Amino acid sequence: MPVMEDIAWNVVEKSDVAKNTTNPIRNVVDRLKIPPNPEKTVISLGLGDPTAFGNLQVPVQAVKAVQKTLLAHQSNGYPPAVGYEKTRAAIARRYTRPEAPLEANDVIVTSGCSGALEMAFSALAHAGQTILLPQPGFSLYKTLCDNKGIKVKYYRLIPERNWEVDLAHVEELLDDSVAGWLINNPSNPCGSVYSRQHLIKCKELAAKHRLMIVADEIYEDMVFSPNEFHPMALLEPRIPLLACGGLAKRFLVPGWRVGWILIHDQSHALNQIRGALVDLAGIILGANSIMQAAIPDIFEHVPESFHQEVNQYIGHNADIAYDCLADTPGLSLLRPQGALYMMVGWQVDRFGFEDDVQICERLISEESVLCLPGTIFGMKNYIRIVYCAPPEMIEEATGRIKAFCARHYRQ
Amino acid sequence: MPVMEDIAWNVVEKSDVAKNTTNPIRNVVDRLKIPPNPEKTVISLGLGDPTAFGNLQVPVQAVKAVQKTLLAHQSNGYPPAVGYEKTRAAIARRYTRPEAPLEANDVIVTSGCSGALEMAFSALAHAGQTILLPQPGFSLYKTLCDNKGIKVKYYRLIPERNWEVDLAHVEELLDDSVAGWLINNPSNPCGSVYSRQHLIKCKELAAKHRLMIVADEIYEDMVFSPNEFHPMALLEPRIPLLACGGLAKRFLVPGWRVGWILIHDQSHALNQIRGALVDLAGIILGANSIMQAAIPDIFEHVPESFHQEVNQYIGHNADIAYDCLADTPGLSLLRPQGALYMMVGWQVDRFGFEDDVQICERLISEESVLCLPGTIFGMKNYIRIVYCAPPEMIEEATGRIKAFCARHYRQ
Repeated sequence: MPVMEDIAWNVVEKSDVAKNTTNPIRNVVDRLKIPPNPEKTVISLGLGDPTAFGNLQVPVQAVKAVQKTLLAHQSNGYPPAVGYEKTRAAIARRYTRPEAPLEANDVIVTSGCSGALEMAFSALAHAGQTILLPQPGFSLYKTLCDNKGIKVKYYRLIPERNWEVDLAHVEELLDDSVAGWLINNPSNPCGSVYSRQHLIKCKELAAKHRLMIVADEIYEDMVFSPNEFHPMALLEPRIPLLACGGLAKRFLVPGWRVGWILIHDQSHALNQIRGALVDLAGIILGANSIMQAAIPDIFEHVPESFHQEVNQYIGHNADIAYDCLADTPGLSLLRPQGALYMMVGWQVDRFGFEDDVQICERLISEESVLCLPGTIFGMKNYIRIVYCAPPEMIEEATGRIKAFCARHYRQ
Repeated sequence: MPVMEDIAWNVVEKSDVAKNTTNPIRNVVDRLKIPPNPEKTVISLGLGDPTAFGNLQVPVQAVKAVQKTLLAHQSNGYPPAVGYEKTRAAIARRYTRPEAPLEANDVIVTSGCSGALEMAFSALAHAGQTILLPQPGFSLYKTLCDNKGIKVKYYRLIPERNWEVDLAHVEELLDDSVAGWLINNPSNPCGSVYSRQHLIKCKELAAKHRLMIVADEIYEDMVFSPNEFHPMALLEPRIPLLACGGLAKRFLVPGWRVGWILIHDQSHALNQIRGALVDLAGIILGANSIMQAAIPDIFEHVPESFHQEVNQYIGHNADIAYDCLADTPGLSLLRPQGALYMMVGWQVDRFGFEDDVQICERLISEESVLCLPGTIFGMKNYIRIVYCAPPEMIEEATGRIKAFCARHYRQ
């Protein structure tokens, strides 16, 4: 036996999987760790966390529901891997519609909506197969796929057409390796909400090519009047669909990590996938037991007015941001329709900047305003603005951005 | 465009990953779904969930800590992927020792201990590499590996030697593909607690072959007097180690899904692995924010006496089960030392049974007692008994098993 004191361990190598899971965003974000302008208070429009500022609070009825569950001492053990039956039933009741009926059995409770997406991708695709992702889109999609060796191909969203899916481009990308098509509506980072007509066209394309849609609808109903959210499941409802959602955004509790997959399968095409989701659920052993046990109570007692007020508040903020920047020379942007986001395009040459990352650096160093560069979402020369801060901060921050633009813009 | 009503979808095929994640236990458990003896009340000694009977309750101080966190409205947003800094610091403080110091940075908060194991396996091994697993052992280890295409090889535990690791067998199994060695202490399903000497021998073997140990210590300190638990990190502490644990068993809250990985790395061999764990944490986005935020308060306020009382209670139950069955002709068993489990070997030919699965079927149909067959843990002709039910139920159930043995045993 070796003498322990003499042991020099070589570096233990990480796995290829871990190597592939390295987050490409980190380099970008590291570049943004620069000193802000000391003369201006820092305002972050960077993080898509509606709880970050304290101005948006979890509904009291949800807190009460969790407290009641906690004090009942009945939900501390292992829930079934797919979730408590009563929780699945409550989620099914909330989302079932005559044209797209759901039962408890059609619901899988997951560890957050990202857990739902991970399971959906994993059920549909293995290493070497492909998932189609939106560009621009939420960067976690690719991270989840990379971790499993699943290839990704990006389909374009068309900024000029309200960030709609470029359906011709989707068709160009199709080959035998494509096992799933991720559609995100309302959109992070675009803040767009698709029309009924556009969503029907997407589903028709899926039907034509027998392409499985995974709908990321985590921002469902977080939509500003007069826009309307159409759940994909309700349009051409015979086309099979996995719809992913969760408590995170609608109830302002992303940290609670409760999500779900709704299995819409009127054509009985998803028996294998349903079984796969059940098996995959066994690995993670589901979401926190207290939070998921509280869901029936949360759904019953949080009034619709809560969501309406949140939407009005955020929609008002979105308008402040849009109205401030809309006519700024060198910028292009659309009035946000939902979610928490707005993408702002920059004519970089007019500003003398290299790219969106440099713009974000300068916004920090000159204006103490933090935004994320579009590069993180696959969209160079755009920046993403999150407008869930209090309105006076949004006004101040976008005002600074406007002044920044005026200072740097060249005719 | 096709007319939607005419669409017949072919079955959407699940991925190879999903195919590999099928739980082999299910077939066995399905065989146990048979009617119990209607004349006897059903007693389940099957599930390793200490909350199942209501006799063991989460400490009031832990409930208060969670309630306080919930009502403070400060922990509903996204925690950092690796966990809140204060949570990591509290876990580090709890486990740090002069000979094996830990800082917040050495702690990764995970979604349950199974989440910790998944991340540890994933950081160390990719598809085609091998993790060494104990036989008998907890079946989730293999499920986690299967899901990632990681191969497993089983090393024997020696029943005659208190279920110690067969170190010679471990050495036989070593080849270039082996990337990690899972050691579970205290053991599920064996109920054994390893001596200091044995654990040192394990670590010396690891050092000799530069083999990374992943220690599953979820049952840490759940040990019955006069036995003692030795954290692997404290023995030969210069040998690198990933130790996995969580709130589940010690605080009787498996449903809360809060676990952690402790990175012990005095030789600075784990820089890559540490980075890999941080990257992998980004996929799952951590444990429930409320529960993890409550950890500092839980650790501070739940008195040591709570754990002592739980251990006394469970240890007393273990003695009841052992004392009842110890001298039964045809059975072999050891007095449990910790965790919630006891393995009971059967001379099947003496009883005229085919195997352990049949024994468990007959225990249900004749005695209404549910136990899991050893086959599920890789140990044929054993059954696993869980003794966290109330003592009178343990007494009743093991009494029935004893009577069952007497009835079927042939000289």
